[in-house]
Amino acid sequence: MKEKFINAIGAGEFVKDIFVLTEKSLAQKRDGKNFLNVILSDKTGDLKGVVWDNVDDIVEHITSGDFVYVEGSVNEYKGALQIVVKKTEVRSADSVDPGDYLPETGRDIEKMFERLLSIAATLKSIHLKALFEAFWKDEEFVRKFKTAPAAKKMHHAYLGGLLEHTLSMVSLADKIAGHYTGISRELLIAGTILHDIGKIREFDYTYKIDYSDEGRLLNHIVIGVQMIDEKIKKIENFPEEQALLLKHLVVSHHGFREFGSPEPPKTIEAVLLNYIDEIDSKVNGIREFMASEEPGSGWTSYHKIFGRHFYKGKELKQTSQE
Amino acid sequence: MKEKFINAIGAGEFVKDIFVLTEKSLAQKRDGKNFLNVILSDKTGDLKGVVWDNVDDIVEHITSGDFVYVEGSVNEYKGALQIVVKKTEVRSADSVDPGDYLPETGRDIEKMFERLLSIAATLKSIHLKALFEAFWKDEEFVRKFKTAPAAKKMHHAYLGGLLEHTLSMVSLADKIAGHYTGISRELLIAGTILHDIGKIREFDYTYKIDYSDEGRLLNHIVIGVQMIDEKIKKIENFPEEQALLLKHLVVSHHGFREFGSPEPPKTIEAVLLNYIDEIDSKVNGIREFMASEEPGSGWTSYHKIFGRHFYKGKELKQTSQE
Amino acid sequence: MKEKFINAIGAGEFVKDIFVLTEKSLAQKRDGKNFLNVILSDKTGDLKGVVWDNVDDIVEHITSGDFVYVEGSVNEYKGALQIVVKKTEVRSADSVDPGDYLPETGRDIEKMFERLLSIAATLKSIHLKALFEAFWKDEEFVRKFKTAPAAKKMHHAYLGGLLEHTLSMVSLADKIAGHYTGISRELLIAGTILHDIGKIREFDYTYKIDYSDEGRLLNHIVIGVQMIDEKIKKIENFPEEQALLLKHLVVSHHGFREFGSPEPPKTIEAVLLNYIDEIDSKVNGIREFMASEEPGSGWTSYHKIFGRHFYKGKELKQTSQE
Amino acid sequence: MKEKFINAIGAGEFVKDIFVLTEKSLAQKRDGKNFLNVILSDKTGDLKGVVWDNVDDIVEHITSGDFVYVEGSVNEYKGALQIVVKKTEVRSADSVDPGDYLPETGRDIEKMFERLLSIAATLKSIHLKALFEAFWKDEEFVRKFKTAPAAKKMHHAYLGGLLEHTLSMVSLADKIAGHYTGISRELLIAGTILHDIGKIREFDYTYKIDYSDEGRLLNHIVIGVQMIDEKIKKIENFPEEQALLLKHLVVSHHGFREFGSPEPPKTIEAVLLNYIDEIDSKVNGIREFMASEEPGSGWTSYHKIFGRHFYKGKELKQTSQE
Amino acid sequence: MKEKFINAIGAGEFVKDIFVLTEKSLAQKRDGKNFLNVILSDKTGDLKGVVWDNVDDIVEHITSGDFVYVEGSVNEYKGALQIVVKKTEVRSADSVDPGDYLPETGRDIEKMFERLLSIAATLKSIHLKALFEAFWKDEEFVRKFKTAPAAKKMHHAYLGGLLEHTLSMVSLADKIAGHYTGISRELLIAGTILHDIGKIREFDYTYKIDYSDEGRLLNHIVIGVQMIDEKIKKIENFPEEQALLLKHLVVSHHGFREFGSPEPPKTIEAVLLNYIDEIDSKVNGIREFMASEEPGSGWTSYHKIFGRHFYKGKELKQTSQE
Amino acid sequence: MKEKFINAIGAGEFVKDIFVLTEKSLAQKRDGKNFLNVILSDKTGDLKGVVWDNVDDIVEHITSGDFVYVEGSVNEYKGALQIVVKKTEVRSADSVDPGDYLPETGRDIEKMFERLLSIAATLKSIHLKALFEAFWKDEEFVRKFKTAPAAKKMHHAYLGGLLEHTLSMVSLADKIAGHYTGISRELLIAGTILHDIGKIREFDYTYKIDYSDEGRLLNHIVIGVQMIDEKIKKIENFPEEQALLLKHLVVSHHGFREFGSPEPPKTIEAVLLNYIDEIDSKVNGIREFMASEEPGSGWTSYHKIFGRHFYKGKELKQTSQE
Repeated sequence: MKEKFINAIGAGEFVKDIFVLTEKSLAQKRDGKNFLNVILSDKTGDLKGVVWDNVDDIVEHITSGDFVYVEGSVNEYKGALQIVVKKTEVRSADSVDPGDYLPETGRDIEKMFERLLSIAATLKSIHLKALFEAFWKDEEFVRKFKTAPAAKKMHHAYLGGLLEHTLSMVSLADKIAGHYTGISRELLIAGTILHDIGKIREFDYTYKIDYSDEGRLLNHIVIGVQMIDEKIKKIENFPEEQALLLKHLVVSHHGFREFGSPEPPKTIEAVLLNYIDEIDSKVNGIREFMASEEPGSGWTSYHKIFGRHFYKGKELKQTSQE
Repeated sequence: MKEKFINAIGAGEFVKDIFVLTEKSLAQKRDGKNFLNVILSDKTGDLKGVVWDNVDDIVEHITSGDFVYVEGSVNEYKGALQIVVKKTEVRSADSVDPGDYLPETGRDIEKMFERLLSIAATLKSIHLKALFEAFWKDEEFVRKFKTAPAAKKMHHAYLGGLLEHTLSMVSLADKIAGHYTGISRELLIAGTILHDIGKIREFDYTYKIDYSDEGRLLNHIVIGVQMIDEKIKKIENFPEEQALLLKHLVVSHHGFREFGSPEPPKTIEAVLLNYIDEIDSKVNGIREFMASEEPGSGWTSYHKIFGRHFYKGKELKQTSQE
Repeated sequence: MKEKFINAIGAGEFVKDIFVLTEKSLAQKRDGKNFLNVILSDKTGDLKGVVWDNVDDIVEHITSGDFVYVEGSVNEYKGALQIVVKKTEVRSADSVDPGDYLPETGRDIEKMFERLLSIAATLKSIHLKALFEAFWKDEEFVRKFKTAPAAKKMHHAYLGGLLEHTLSMVSLADKIAGHYTGISRELLIAGTILHDIGKIREFDYTYKIDYSDEGRLLNHIVIGVQMIDEKIKKIENFPEEQALLLKHLVVSHHGFREFGSPEPPKTIEAVLLNYIDEIDSKVNGIREFMASEEPGSGWTSYHKIFGRHFYKGKELKQTSQE
Repeated sequence: MKEKFINAIGAGEFVKDIFVLTEKSLAQKRDGKNFLNVILSDKTGDLKGVVWDNVDDIVEHITSGDFVYVEGSVNEYKGALQIVVKKTEVRSADSVDPGDYLPETGRDIEKMFERLLSIAATLKSIHLKALFEAFWKDEEFVRKFKTAPAAKKMHHAYLGGLLEHTLSMVSLADKIAGHYTGISRELLIAGTILHDIGKIREFDYTYKIDYSDEGRLLNHIVIGVQMIDEKIKKIENFPEEQALLLKHLVVSHHGFREFGSPEPPKTIEAVLLNYIDEIDSKVNGIREFMASEEPGSGWTSYHKIFGRHFYKGKELKQTSQE
Repeated sequence: MKEKFINAIGAGEFVKDIFVLTEKSLAQKRDGKNFLNVILSDKTGDLKGVVWDNVDDIVEHITSGDFVYVEGSVNEYKGALQIVVKKTEVRSADSVDPGDYLPETGRDIEKMFERLLSIAATLKSIHLKALFEAFWKDEEFVRKFKTAPAAKKMHHAYLGGLLEHTLSMVSLADKIAGHYTGISRELLIAGTILHDIGKIREFDYTYKIDYSDEGRLLNHIVIGVQMIDEKIKKIENFPEEQALLLKHLVVSHHGFREFGSPEPPKTIEAVLLNYIDEIDSKVNGIREFMASEEPGSGWTSYHKIFGRHFYKGKELKQTSQE
Repeated sequence: MKEKFINAIGAGEFVKDIFVLTEKSLAQKRDGKNFLNVILSDKTGDLKGVVWDNVDDIVEHITSGDFVYVEGSVNEYKGALQIVVKKTEVRSADSVDPGDYLPETGRDIEKMFERLLSIAATLKSIHLKALFEAFWKDEEFVRKFKTAPAAKKMHHAYLGGLLEHTLSMVSLADKIAGHYTGISRELLIAGTILHDIGKIREFDYTYKIDYSDEGRLLNHIVIGVQMIDEKIKKIENFPEEQALLLKHLVVSHHGFREFGSPEPPKTIEAVLLNYIDEIDSKVNGIREFMASEEPGSGWTSYHKIFGRHFYKGKELKQTSQE
């Protein structure tokens, strides 16, 4: 377990703690001897460091992404903190709490998952039931589905974010499916649960949240369709039309080709799924953006992706000024 | 009351009925005498006609948009029906049922309006209460708000469509406001009710649904803000911030400048209103498009605005083939 | 075999021939009796027809897309030819030459396929070899791959068009791979062969060339990745990186998200594949457009998709004027 | 009155002068005691400062935007000047010359306003005359109209900029209205004077030029229409068509929806107003950009909004090199 | 000289007049004999015709674009007028008045040209003077410059349109150059005169207004620069900077790359020229569009390029209804 | 000849070498005396410097772009190297090797040029032969054509880059011209050789690679057409159509108006030229981008223009980690 997080460390301290090694690069001193620049990280930030001794040994045994027990003294260098590393030992990923190293949802993952299961259990189609049974029995899938983030930045960009986003959307989908007549609740709920499952492979989230090779090369939409295809192939007599419509929900859920969907939504369920996704990711994204801003102004700073400032309101402003 | 609608009239009949005169234009016979080409309409379609006699009198007394009692015989001319008009009398708009001449919502307007009133009545802010009181007391507003269409084409393009669209959105807004914490239900419900009120002046819908001069020159967003501004000015101490945020919901409800909003949504309530509007207009628009298409195919024809075919499904196709 | 193609039939003839029934729709005569409007087609065009007798029997036994032996007399009706159908018999698809009913490549399909096999045989990677072996052994795949069109309109929009387009691209790819150093010829050739295989399911091309349900709902890019995924799963130890890069070629071959690729090309091979596809489809598309235009002008008519007139040249113009 | 402007202050000086407090934020020393970071500004720039003593008192009594008499010594800290504030006293806005704190037009505001009045006085329509009378009698309107900037950045971004921009445009409009026949000079001149009046509320310009809450939430186009609507409502028998066309000039003056106009120009006067606005803002914007650039090059640096370098010319280059 | 224009010809007349032969195409009668479909045109419209006799002779001697004296009788065929041509004789272009066959400016070409010369004569730069002298001495240039249209459609699409457009712009440029300080009137006036000269080769306008091969392949901007380059090369010591800036006015006058300018305006003169061009072409285009519309409505029909209806006004509407 | 390149210079050295003076700017010391900030460059980078003595003399005699022999001592200032210049002497451009000061192609310029000549020599058209003869005889053209870069950034942005890019494209064009029937190899090869010749004037590349005034004001497409026009004018009976088609290849080679081509490609040769240009510039650009990136990651950093990361591959990553 972590003793102290990076954002609490000050100059002058001697640190003994486990970090993730985010980057390392070899450099040369004027005298020709090698030394190592490293970046150590936990969920609260990054700490630059140097290693003067024992460099070759470390280069050989420690890889970016490793959890490393480090001992060293912290000082200020060029206006920033720097740790002079004295000792390093690789630790297994099992021996640490990933939540110490990556931001994590504030909600209870197991409870969210149970809630999702209970909604999935209300589906009546025997084929959809069989499909979800296949997913829930797939332990690796479940493990990753519970921890994956929903994005690298922008919204739900933390461990458990995918599950949190999916559950919120399923709950919205249920409400909206009931509002209009003629909507297939079965299809909409099933598609909502599965729409982003490709993200469990689109991202790496062992020690930092970033795109995986597969994510960058194939996109979670394509990965997700493959994952569904694989499971459906093993279910006898899965109706072809139902399979197509379910995959279509995944394929079209970004709404437009410009946003990565090879085809736009062509059923009302697909149109709804796209808007439900938009609503949930925008609401979460704007809130997190507002929360990340310093108080004291009625407006957020300019949000580059959304292209605007958001209004936080008069009251907030007054509070922060008194 | 109408005897027979245009889509039921056949060649060889002698017609005595009230139509709306949609167009008239003077033309000249080879012998130099004037005659009149007219288009008579009701909610089921248009009927071309000619008037050979008494032309000057008609030109003087009948204007496009008038309800006209017509007698005449119907024949076929160049492959289409044509009525040779023998007699015409202008009738007052009061003496006819507008629903005979323009498409109308299939739902009960009074019940929808009562339902809207009851939701508006749940608002707690005394200023918002006062604002709605002012609107509901404005008889001309209420009369128009109950009959206005929500669009010329695309969605809810029929009398009562604005009310139907608004009520559906308010109900959705209520559900979504409850889904997320930190949403101002007051603001979202009030803004949803008012977001499109400018449409009661943006459209003409006495005898055909089309843009009014004011609609084309100012846009319903600008008209709506003026209408709210006028009412708010008469309410004492209406809080300035609340007024701004309410108007902002109207100003931004199209989501992007490209779609006519001078500013994009800058509060979460405004973001939500935009999506709720999108959902309700798209769902209604796609359904009406599907319903307007001939059965017998699994797909609709190409929808030019949406840029795609929509899937109607296998079962429909099979039905139509058997 | 066809006796006479539709573009050669004239008014006054009595026809006994096999057509594909492209459309049928029931209508009612003034006396209340049913009759049938039909459209009969072959590769040279469409022929409208009516069936007055025996209608119920035909409605029951003949479906759109059937090949039908028809007897009837041809006359002119409202300025177009019309066949009054006297007799109809369904014929099996085996008993006709599909090339009589749909436009077909002018080149020899078997020779093109052999040529493609021989190029595929030059690949050295044992895993790619195994992959292509799996495809070539899949008889249904091969049958469809040989007959599928490459598009509904625009380019190679005829039976065998996919193979013709693929082979031309592979040959170009081979030349370009040799032009630059550091290109993986293995990957580029393999990806070029497979890039459009999803089209064998994206289109229906039994009796008319149109999008299939699967094509409209999933897009050939997504279908193609699933097809490759299915084959690769059965090959032992197929290297993960090679599989990703191969699928990436399919995923990105439209170059931009706007054109349907969920991810843009991120390797030089993918960049090249996109351009090779662009070149071959544009050159074929422009040539077919030029060929479809009436001679006698130095310019084609306006091409709506490309947004321009194409120059056919002075000499052509002179020829056509003399 | 200012003793010395910020751009003339050097390290080592002891300053006694009035600044505007642009920002203040509380921070904590290592020993746990509060101190205050402040930014003091005048029209020539910003000066960072710290307050070590009496912090709570200042926090309570001084707000961002206040004019503050400050005493303190200036030193260099991390490569920039910093004032160590010893004494602070709030001063009333009346006691300072706003032109000392914000950039101001170089032209005589009163003369410009008189010139505008004299042009407005040439209008012949009694209703337009009544409308302008109403505006000129509105003292708060006149006061703000004389001082408002025309923009935050880009063009005429200084006190009096709105008036300068409006007057220049009115003069251009007069010339262009005379060039073409059939233009309503009345409408064009009136619309030009009023097109940007919403900016007097869109911006805050008491101590810094920035968007107001109302500006960001409603946009000056919507604000301007409300302002005109309010005045017109009080004029008897203001012709409806004239009112619509005048408001349309305001609504459409940005030319395209993408640029914030809910409707594009639909009369020739509106088309002209849009171009006159474009010309005057572009010419002013480019000139100010050129003037803000260091001499010595024939080209400006890259202008991000306009997406290009501007040519300043050979002669300039030579001059600056000698 | 024309006896009677096409829009005045009625069925039953026997015509003896000169037309331009816009199109001819050979067809075959059922009996295998050739006949000729022709289109005859003058500035008021087109008249379809057939030639039954002497076909081979006509095919050999008459070419599209020829002026042809025709005798024939006019009847109605399929709802349109058709002339059965009995006699044809080619006439030389000199023997006809081109203004009878193509729409022409309503203004006096010679007076417009003199006015332009007099403005050009106010330029002071000896090099610009020499340049214009070279152009005015180039008889072919002058002849074409006086007759060329400014466009195929949209604005000034008639003989003399280029001159009319240029003169109007020069006059506007003179006014605007005087409005701002620091504008080079020399450069702006010279550039305005020359900005569209490439159009004298971009269009064919001998018997119909259409793009020339050169126009479609090179664009009038590139043609215009070549024309200026050719003249400048022959002027001794023409200052390089002046030549570049003058050509830049031509190159950039469409304002954006999307509109065909390889570079956007980079001097204030170029920015102004672009707006002056926009104003004059829009005002002319909108007016001609309004004039081409039937009276009787306050609005024009939808203008596809401009994407809107234009307001013609209440009064017009009333007039046309009475 | 250079003694030592900038990237090899360290603090503490005393330098005696020739650099290009990229920038100089006069500044004032606190005591009021002038000093000079300079930037010295060679192909490996920039070195900041100060001159304390003899400033006026240097200002008068040395201009940006001059080659200057410098003596001075190098130290560290604010974390970067700085040379304190003691002595300066201007050197003539002839006395230095330009390749020392600007990046240069790694390939043999003379050999590349010979190869290009030999391909041009295969053309059969006597007029094209005459045209190239005219270009090859133009010594200034040849000298610049051999040294010009193909771009400022992005691809082939080094001396000789234009020739390298052109030769690579010509070789590709030859292959592709042979792949399709009906392509004019003559036109395609000639157009490919000439498509970018305007770049020899679009860029300055004497001491740094940047746009020239002419390049920024006219664009290389317009410059190139003028250059061809000038040569063609001197060739007797150069066929007009051939000249137009050749210029069209230059005009349209950027493919779309948005990318600077006043007209899009309207012949198949022009379509091909555009793609060949795209392929060669993209392949070169991506490779150079990959090469400029630090090893050690499977992906490049984000490429802003291309809007993506590029995949460098697993193997690279492993190599760099061991």
